[in-house]
Amino acid sequence: MFENNSRTEISDLGEFGLIKRLTEGNELKNASSLKGIGDDCAVVDATSDTKKVITTDLLVEGVHFDLSYTPLKHLGYKAVVANLSDVFAMNAIPEQILVSVAMSNRFSVEAMEELYDGIYLACDKYKVDLVGGDTSNTKQGLTISITAIGVAAEEDIIYRNGAKENDLICVTGDLGAAYMGLQILEREKRIFLENPNIQPDIQNYDFIIGKQLKPECANKELEALKLAGIKPTSLIDISDGLASELFHIAEQSNVGVIIYEEKLPIDQQTFDVALEMNLNPPTVAFSGGEDYELLFTISQSDFEKVKAIKDIHIIGYCTPVSEGMFSYTKSGTKISLEKQGYKAF
Amino acid sequence: MFENNSRTEISDLGEFGLIKRLTEGNELKNASSLKGIGDDCAVVDATSDTKKVITTDLLVEGVHFDLSYTPLKHLGYKAVVANLSDVFAMNAIPEQILVSVAMSNRFSVEAMEELYDGIYLACDKYKVDLVGGDTSNTKQGLTISITAIGVAAEEDIIYRNGAKENDLICVTGDLGAAYMGLQILEREKRIFLENPNIQPDIQNYDFIIGKQLKPECANKELEALKLAGIKPTSLIDISDGLASELFHIAEQSNVGVIIYEEKLPIDQQTFDVALEMNLNPPTVAFSGGEDYELLFTISQSDFEKVKAIKDIHIIGYCTPVSEGMFSYTKSGTKISLEKQGYKAF
Repeated sequence: MFENNSRTEISDLGEFGLIKRLTEGNELKNASSLKGIGDDCAVVDATSDTKKVITTDLLVEGVHFDLSYTPLKHLGYKAVVANLSDVFAMNAIPEQILVSVAMSNRFSVEAMEELYDGIYLACDKYKVDLVGGDTSNTKQGLTISITAIGVAAEEDIIYRNGAKENDLICVTGDLGAAYMGLQILEREKRIFLENPNIQPDIQNYDFIIGKQLKPECANKELEALKLAGIKPTSLIDISDGLASELFHIAEQSNVGVIIYEEKLPIDQQTFDVALEMNLNPPTVAFSGGEDYELLFTISQSDFEKVKAIKDIHIIGYCTPVSEGMFSYTKSGTKISLEKQGYKAF
Repeated sequence: MFENNSRTEISDLGEFGLIKRLTEGNELKNASSLKGIGDDCAVVDATSDTKKVITTDLLVEGVHFDLSYTPLKHLGYKAVVANLSDVFAMNAIPEQILVSVAMSNRFSVEAMEELYDGIYLACDKYKVDLVGGDTSNTKQGLTISITAIGVAAEEDIIYRNGAKENDLICVTGDLGAAYMGLQILEREKRIFLENPNIQPDIQNYDFIIGKQLKPECANKELEALKLAGIKPTSLIDISDGLASELFHIAEQSNVGVIIYEEKLPIDQQTFDVALEMNLNPPTVAFSGGEDYELLFTISQSDFEKVKAIKDIHIIGYCTPVSEGMFSYTKSGTKISLEKQGYKAF
């Protein structure tokens, strides 16, 4: 699985040695990062005109990721992106992360360096500082816990509970690609396990596999909204699947929703692979998960402004809560929206 | 292992149902906790005259705790205390925690409620709010990740790097008790596994077992120092063992240390059990770990003031870095201090 030629045992370095090796050359970029790794806590600057937002996520091998087809560098990158996506979903700017890793002795120091290469790559891309964390061992597998801290002016923070009747429902990017990428990786894994001589056939699936293995945050679209003078009325990131997130917004905002399936942004490759696997593309878009796109609502008065923004798609609108949660299929059939989504259990 | 009569499977509730059950009745106590569980991030208030300190810890079953003798309620309590201890070790006040838990299907909803009972108990005791987290499953075992956030004025924050030559070295409370408690629990577990009819003999070990299973933070001693007008020059909490922490302070402050073993605060029960197990009590105090006491240095000019404070013990002083790390035994022999301490690997 690991292509490194050399293998250093983590036990040869010890915990402090490992931390030193993994954090060498780690430089703090943000003015608010006052103290990074090396004391009992990280220290972060604050100002009275801003608030801090904080999120945390725990990723477990065999549940959230499969190392037989996930390179450790990609895993590190994706783990950071998943957390930063939650910070952007408050309309805040991420500035710091803390990373805890527990690993079995199956992992070498070089393997951990690959994981941290991905973590640092995401830190560079999104201008975030690694300021703390913890490493320890496990009897089995790899567990990663990331905490991300962001900053926002109080008036900029967007919660899930602000959607109003008649608001337009929008999503960024495209949906379902990460899920279909996962299906391809799982299929090729099964084929490989049955016959190790067959090479994986993934060259026609580069887009969806890329979305699965190396997702990005939709922060550019947030910047475009700000530039256009639009402040969404509610905002959430799509990690568990569009349907699940629609229910969060609807329940917290006390509205119903109508979604038009033909408006769902589904990439051609996602669409084709879904059909190839006998899946209904809109269902994949509703339930896929791990898109790390943003779902938000805006006032109808912002319709003209939002139309001009690239990669933002209006997929429906909010109704009175009494009207429930529905979608229209392409053929015009009205169907009840299911709270399907990705389930961790 | 679990004494509950009823058993609800976590899969019956699902992730959101479990979170709802575990966070029912959770009320935010601190003015700085603006938004708790229920959105993409928690939101925390900030002021320009204070800084935020942040720490995180990952606890893995079979590595950091053994559920055959650790009640889940105690585990939850201790996991919070371990994190808050790091916040106090910056001379900051903890205000928020985020808790992530990953568990296998061996655990019931009732078991998770016991764990959270302990978490909430610690939150109440230390006036901290549970504002976020994550739950998911694992194939095996229980993993807990806690992040704690505290607040302090910049001038109050105490790092590890401020100790000066001739500063007095102090510790709170007593040392080695948690380690000896662990040895008793491990011994009784072995005896029980060999012969399940023998009842565990732990009644004479209440103090050290209590220190192992339900430690507390040494925040009262920090308050006493503040009241007495003493600001330590360096500060760290003792989680990996006194020796290990002395090396952290010495290395970061660029000093040497002299410790007098006869000055080490060792409870009589710790002392007796150490001898019973053929261990040298000072070695236990140096290397035990999990004490969650505080180690700090103060200026010699604060000597008279510190003498009057209960549960604070002067155990040595700082020397020029060239003089190295030493301790004097009771008989007056000067021996080199070993960076022993608890090792996670």
